[in-house]
Amino acid sequence: MRWSNTFIPTLKEDPQDAEAISHKLMVRAGLIRRLTAGAYIYLPMGYRALRKAEEIVREEMNAGGGAELFMPALQPPELWKKTGRYDDMGDVMIKYTDRHGKEIALGPTHEEVVTDLVSREVRSYKDIPLILYQIQTKFRDEVRPRFGVVRSCEFIMKDAYSFDADVEAMEASYKKMYDAYCRIFKRCGVPYVAVEADPGLMGGTVSHEFMVPSKMGEDRIIICSQCGYAASTEVAGASSKDDRKKDPEKPKNIEEVSTPGLSTAMDVSKFLKVDPRDLIKTLIYIADDEPIAVLVRGDHEANETKIKNKLSAKTLELADEEKVKEVTGGDMGFSGPVDLGIRIYGDDSVKNMVNAVAGANKKDTHLVNVNPGKDFKVHQWMDARIITETDPCPKCGSDIELKQAIEIGHTFKLGTKYSEPLNAKFLDEKGKECLIIMGCYGIGINRILASLIETSCDKDGIIWPVSIAPCEVVVIPVKREDEDLFSEAERVYEELCEAGVDVILDDRKKTIGVKFKDADLIGFPGQVIIGSKGLKEGKVEVKSRATGENSFVDKDKVVESVKAILGD
Amino acid sequence: MRWSNTFIPTLKEDPQDAEAISHKLMVRAGLIRRLTAGAYIYLPMGYRALRKAEEIVREEMNAGGGAELFMPALQPPELWKKTGRYDDMGDVMIKYTDRHGKEIALGPTHEEVVTDLVSREVRSYKDIPLILYQIQTKFRDEVRPRFGVVRSCEFIMKDAYSFDADVEAMEASYKKMYDAYCRIFKRCGVPYVAVEADPGLMGGTVSHEFMVPSKMGEDRIIICSQCGYAASTEVAGASSKDDRKKDPEKPKNIEEVSTPGLSTAMDVSKFLKVDPRDLIKTLIYIADDEPIAVLVRGDHEANETKIKNKLSAKTLELADEEKVKEVTGGDMGFSGPVDLGIRIYGDDSVKNMVNAVAGANKKDTHLVNVNPGKDFKVHQWMDARIITETDPCPKCGSDIELKQAIEIGHTFKLGTKYSEPLNAKFLDEKGKECLIIMGCYGIGINRILASLIETSCDKDGIIWPVSIAPCEVVVIPVKREDEDLFSEAERVYEELCEAGVDVILDDRKKTIGVKFKDADLIGFPGQVIIGSKGLKEGKVEVKSRATGENSFVDKDKVVESVKAILGD
Repeated sequence: MRWSNTFIPTLKEDPQDAEAISHKLMVRAGLIRRLTAGAYIYLPMGYRALRKAEEIVREEMNAGGGAELFMPALQPPELWKKTGRYDDMGDVMIKYTDRHGKEIALGPTHEEVVTDLVSREVRSYKDIPLILYQIQTKFRDEVRPRFGVVRSCEFIMKDAYSFDADVEAMEASYKKMYDAYCRIFKRCGVPYVAVEADPGLMGGTVSHEFMVPSKMGEDRIIICSQCGYAASTEVAGASSKDDRKKDPEKPKNIEEVSTPGLSTAMDVSKFLKVDPRDLIKTLIYIADDEPIAVLVRGDHEANETKIKNKLSAKTLELADEEKVKEVTGGDMGFSGPVDLGIRIYGDDSVKNMVNAVAGANKKDTHLVNVNPGKDFKVHQWMDARIITETDPCPKCGSDIELKQAIEIGHTFKLGTKYSEPLNAKFLDEKGKECLIIMGCYGIGINRILASLIETSCDKDGIIWPVSIAPCEVVVIPVKREDEDLFSEAERVYEELCEAGVDVILDDRKKTIGVKFKDADLIGFPGQVIIGSKGLKEGKVEVKSRATGENSFVDKDKVVESVKAILGD
Repeated sequence: MRWSNTFIPTLKEDPQDAEAISHKLMVRAGLIRRLTAGAYIYLPMGYRALRKAEEIVREEMNAGGGAELFMPALQPPELWKKTGRYDDMGDVMIKYTDRHGKEIALGPTHEEVVTDLVSREVRSYKDIPLILYQIQTKFRDEVRPRFGVVRSCEFIMKDAYSFDADVEAMEASYKKMYDAYCRIFKRCGVPYVAVEADPGLMGGTVSHEFMVPSKMGEDRIIICSQCGYAASTEVAGASSKDDRKKDPEKPKNIEEVSTPGLSTAMDVSKFLKVDPRDLIKTLIYIADDEPIAVLVRGDHEANETKIKNKLSAKTLELADEEKVKEVTGGDMGFSGPVDLGIRIYGDDSVKNMVNAVAGANKKDTHLVNVNPGKDFKVHQWMDARIITETDPCPKCGSDIELKQAIEIGHTFKLGTKYSEPLNAKFLDEKGKECLIIMGCYGIGINRILASLIETSCDKDGIIWPVSIAPCEVVVIPVKREDEDLFSEAERVYEELCEAGVDVILDDRKKTIGVKFKDADLIGFPGQVIIGSKGLKEGKVEVKSRATGENSFVDKDKVVESVKAILGD
């Protein structure tokens, strides 16, 4: 490809609306442009990288036994009503009414459509196992689209669905997909971690998230460097080890203290000069329409995923100010477990607290010397908090690390969550009708690019792996005007093309400074620089973007040297 | 690929909702399934064919100098308001309001988005010429989706846009794209005709449609077998040759005749026993809010495209019954040019009519002996009718053929229709700001498949060209249970795979009858049949789907024979 035939609008400055480094670099390197909130144009260089990632995904899905199909974005909402997700999705699912007055949804995902398809076409145990997948555009009305293509309203997803006769067979399909995911992310050069995760809205029991640690990630994971255990903080078990001081105080009697305007744990602990560990935070939730209280220690955060799962609640939301007042009698920030007339759930770490501080359910007032068991009863003790960096590894007890991460893939064991409401059945060998056991598997293709860039760049720009680089090599003639030099550049370019290298010739009439800057910014893995000084000695410069190493090689050995840099 | 690893639900019966043969065959052969009105799932075999067509389109667009990008389906309506097409598109453009109250459109096409992009990024004459294209999903709320994937609400289009400094350069880009289109359709095996066409809503002056003659086509074209001229009936010039009888009658005086309830030309001509050629049809239109009359001969049809263009009208619609009564004083079907108080436009063929029959603008009454010039005046004579099969070729005067056809591609010379309202300018070599001259170029990828099947099938199923067949060859073991025979089939399959042939192994436990029927129905170009009788002599059967020719070849010469059938 010749630079003049394509469209690479690079920028010197970071775009103003970008926070994430990947977002900045994708815009500056001319990979993407914003069209409207959460919708990006992939420019030629960005789209080349995207398509290479897609092709790797396709190859590995095929190798894992998947068959590719292509389902519409336009979906009948009736299918979503059958599974109950029409309401669950809420405003995230985009809908419109067509000219005939029919409501149509834009697919945020395709479990409903593919399960309905299979329910109509699969009859017998001979028709399964079956793994269907697609690489297709999804639509979601995000509350806050951000980080460029990381959280957008329109994005390209690889979604796969497995259909099996029993749980054992589903496990085998799950493993095939899990392994395919590992191969995909490895080939794309993305430093991923597979972690245990919460299935959430998707349903099912077990799921794994494929995460790329990064400061801009919206998710948090823990990693144990000892045993290798990794999990999202949503599911990682927090320690319930006895946390009492070795020489505990004796329980004293409750006293009221005035804490005017101090509604946060931090404020209260400062004011009363007590460790946040000695505070009980009392959170009022509405769980499936019933108000409940959840207690966690002052230095901990409540984990809504765990609470929701343990309570088997369909919905769990923090109560608003009005509701808190109605339920507790006090203002928000002054709730406490003593004399509270609703069910109380306590985090394990609260159980053995002695002489703690808690809200008094009364304006501008807290209680001191509050003791669980003595002063209030808990309906159920449970792991109700988010794991912290000071917790031990839930598997081996060693130290753990807490990291921000970007989710690039998610695999789910679904069971019959979709096959049951959508009636996806098969006749087994004995002619008995059985529900199909499903799994589903998603990869955000856009996020492969963003997370790669997030973790592989320097001050000059992007550092692509060869596998998904927009082009593998750029050929740069130092002077475009020097016809002899340029024709030598063209010769090298042609030679590399013929050798099967994906190469771009920078044939622009720009200064060499601009060309070098753009080459580094876009981040082609290899650079071949044709200068008059080298040419006099029959040599050209071959340089690696990743290592910065360069060498002058005989002009008839360019292909060899370039292939060495590319690792061929 | 092994049949058992993919998903090919073939059907014995035609689907009930299908009219077109391509629609029937695509469903029966397991290529597509309907999800909802105008939205189809591409199953694995259909998607393979689609992707092969896409790849041919991509290769030829690249060869024509195009750079591929990918624009979002979600578009800001503001851009459409700037070009005036927000209103023009009407209900065809799907819109919804997002959670922040903002209206978002689903792109029915991308002129606005790409021109806006270029207006922001292109600065100088050095940045152009530029041809940008994408292969992307479009959304249109069709009044009547039909013929399967031919007219659907969601479809895959290749849309390209050229940006040039002047008309001459635009003509060069246009030619590149026109030539690329010819190569694309030829490689896909589609029997296309390139015809002159009306630009319609897209704007610009000149356009070409790429049409595939087919009974189910929604468009009509004329073809001259002598000079090769081809055009859509919307634009083909109708003859204005003097059509009078050699010995014309003398004009007589008008008389009223009673024609109770006879409101069509056919009814009136039968009742009065006159040739429809001697009737004047008077059509009342509303052109940009002004009522006008258009006269055509009783045996002709008015051509609204021509009328609209000649009048430079933005809108042209037939008047409703009420309006006809208001304007003419008579009922619909009884309008005539005599004493009509609105502008009259007459088709050239009406000019020399003598003693014609026309409506009397009065209930149940017609006039006879009506003579143009004498009895009424015409504001303008023009070519206002649709060409008929009895017309001569507008270019060479020879006989023409009229055909139904499917539009699979359309190229437009747009000029500044989009660059002007969207402010897409560049600085020329003298530093002067100039508008960019544009062209645009669309291909309906889905329609390549449908039109191919429409023109290449027999009673048994589809006959694919090698280029876009879902698989090139199917290997059929006659008995799946016979392990020796099956392992020989596997060997042949592996050998073909290794030779780079795109092959599927029918490893299903089905009767040989079912396998043969499915192979013919899906229409793989080559079939390799492994039977025990042949194997005893060391031979396998190699068969061409297109010709039906078969031969028994030595089992170590399969690759050679298969490649011969595939034309390699």
